[in-house]
Amino acid sequence: MLDHYKLKIDAAIAALDFPEQPADLYDPIRYILKLGGKRIRPMLVLLAADVFDDDGAERAIHAALAVELFHNFTLVHDDIMDEAPLRRGMQTVHQKWNQSVAILSGDKLMVRAYDELVKIDPKKLPVMLRVFNQVAKEVCEGQQWDMQYENERMVTEEEYLSMIRLKTAVLLGGALKMGAISADASEHDAQHLYAFGISLGIAFQLQDDMLDVFGEAEKVGKQNGGDILANKKTILLVLANQLGDEADREELGRLLRMDGLKDPGIAAEKISGVRALYDRLNVHDVAKKRMEEFVANAYRSLDHLQVDQKRLTALRRLAQSLLTRTN
Amino acid sequence: MLDHYKLKIDAAIAALDFPEQPADLYDPIRYILKLGGKRIRPMLVLLAADVFDDDGAERAIHAALAVELFHNFTLVHDDIMDEAPLRRGMQTVHQKWNQSVAILSGDKLMVRAYDELVKIDPKKLPVMLRVFNQVAKEVCEGQQWDMQYENERMVTEEEYLSMIRLKTAVLLGGALKMGAISADASEHDAQHLYAFGISLGIAFQLQDDMLDVFGEAEKVGKQNGGDILANKKTILLVLANQLGDEADREELGRLLRMDGLKDPGIAAEKISGVRALYDRLNVHDVAKKRMEEFVANAYRSLDHLQVDQKRLTALRRLAQSLLTRTN
Repeated sequence: MLDHYKLKIDAAIAALDFPEQPADLYDPIRYILKLGGKRIRPMLVLLAADVFDDDGAERAIHAALAVELFHNFTLVHDDIMDEAPLRRGMQTVHQKWNQSVAILSGDKLMVRAYDELVKIDPKKLPVMLRVFNQVAKEVCEGQQWDMQYENERMVTEEEYLSMIRLKTAVLLGGALKMGAISADASEHDAQHLYAFGISLGIAFQLQDDMLDVFGEAEKVGKQNGGDILANKKTILLVLANQLGDEADREELGRLLRMDGLKDPGIAAEKISGVRALYDRLNVHDVAKKRMEEFVANAYRSLDHLQVDQKRLTALRRLAQSLLTRTN
Repeated sequence: MLDHYKLKIDAAIAALDFPEQPADLYDPIRYILKLGGKRIRPMLVLLAADVFDDDGAERAIHAALAVELFHNFTLVHDDIMDEAPLRRGMQTVHQKWNQSVAILSGDKLMVRAYDELVKIDPKKLPVMLRVFNQVAKEVCEGQQWDMQYENERMVTEEEYLSMIRLKTAVLLGGALKMGAISADASEHDAQHLYAFGISLGIAFQLQDDMLDVFGEAEKVGKQNGGDILANKKTILLVLANQLGDEADREELGRLLRMDGLKDPGIAAEKISGVRALYDRLNVHDVAKKRMEEFVANAYRSLDHLQVDQKRLTALRRLAQSLLTRTN
């Protein structure tokens, strides 16, 4: 059922036509788009459209491509900012080419996203563009908060949730809303689908945070504790700081100041130390409860939709597959 | 006459409202927009609109802002790629903040440009967006060619002209076309205004190349010969290579291999050597002739417009002021 949507997206992406030249502008774009991925965001566009219209997915394909192209633009630029060497096990664009190439081909990817929007029904273009721009703006803000928080010793749970909402969740919500608009859904239904995407996106990110520390490393495809080593703000860190007493916070501060990036011995000590603190404070269970609240909120949003609930089967299935992954 | 348009643009830019937070996203945007500049591109939008409609400029303000915001986005990102420390005598964004901030605030500027387009008459949005995207795409391509050519020993005159057409001229042409569309000009007139902008933009860049070597340094605001030191491909270099014989080309090659970036003595020797070659081959006069051909083409495009030629006075005046500058 979901495969059908995935195949549709993959085919549409494969059919995107880019010029051969200049090679250093278009080769990186071909490269990042071929790296694949789960294509969750464009699938959400199509699934949302099919809720309201049997031919919805057909008509929503350009909006779906716009969302996926935009997402890939953010990947290319975020990888530069995060100095990430790898993406899906392959070299990142700035690593394989260079930084200027990554900046510019990222820019071009964003322009290409807007090119897809031009192809939608002109009557829907203004509202679609408005939703898309709002999402794009918020994603930029989220990335900026994320970078800013890296330099702060600690953030509150509220700040953290607000950050991941912008950085991750609004693109999922926006994708669903664009699908809904494309299929002439009511404002009421479009809003509830958006809310579903927001809750789903936050739950997804909280799960991601938990998998980094408690996931099965071989399935996650990377060593456990990468976030801990990078002093990344995660729901686990935020909750540990919140749940611990003065002594715990001091211990946490001491662990965070350890530089495990160059020394594997220190790295192991730092990760096991933080993990022990997480275990003692029962952080995983609290984080899981938080995640489950967002999952429940997500499904509640779906219940509000004024459509035959049978039409939501595929969407529920995608949400379920996202939230029960082990990697 | 032109001041009126400049003031209008400056006021509209000053009135743009950006959130306070996150500060490292929006402060750089406020900063680059306040650096000022001649605002040529948005003025072209307004001037073009006023050719066809007495209230043209009024209605075209959002298109003009979109063009200026896009232009500033390219400045921020190009400065990173060129590792430029200064822009209009002030620190560049990546220098004043850091590179990640410059990448992200540039991205946000581009999104903000599209936000202005959303505000135009919905009936005109699809065609306007198409023109804008085409320009944005070509500007990215031009920047990529420019970077690629930096690593090539020599490019042909044709390659060079094609590069500056993309990098510089299409945004001027696109600005004029967007103004024309905004004021319901005929397709015929919009095309000729676009052609005017292309010729004007190329002439402008050729002049820029000449001013770097032959301009009055104190008026240009920088030392003569910066392009020579950077081995930048310019019309002068391309013509010298084309007009010289085998021995001249060898001499030119030897001069280009001199690294004058760190040693002021070598720098002076390199600049005076290249300049002597330019003088001997009469490169300045040939370049000036090329420029004059593009200027003539530009004015010929205006002659084709099916409007009262009196309505073109302001546009001609702007072109004239651009092409007779000494800095």
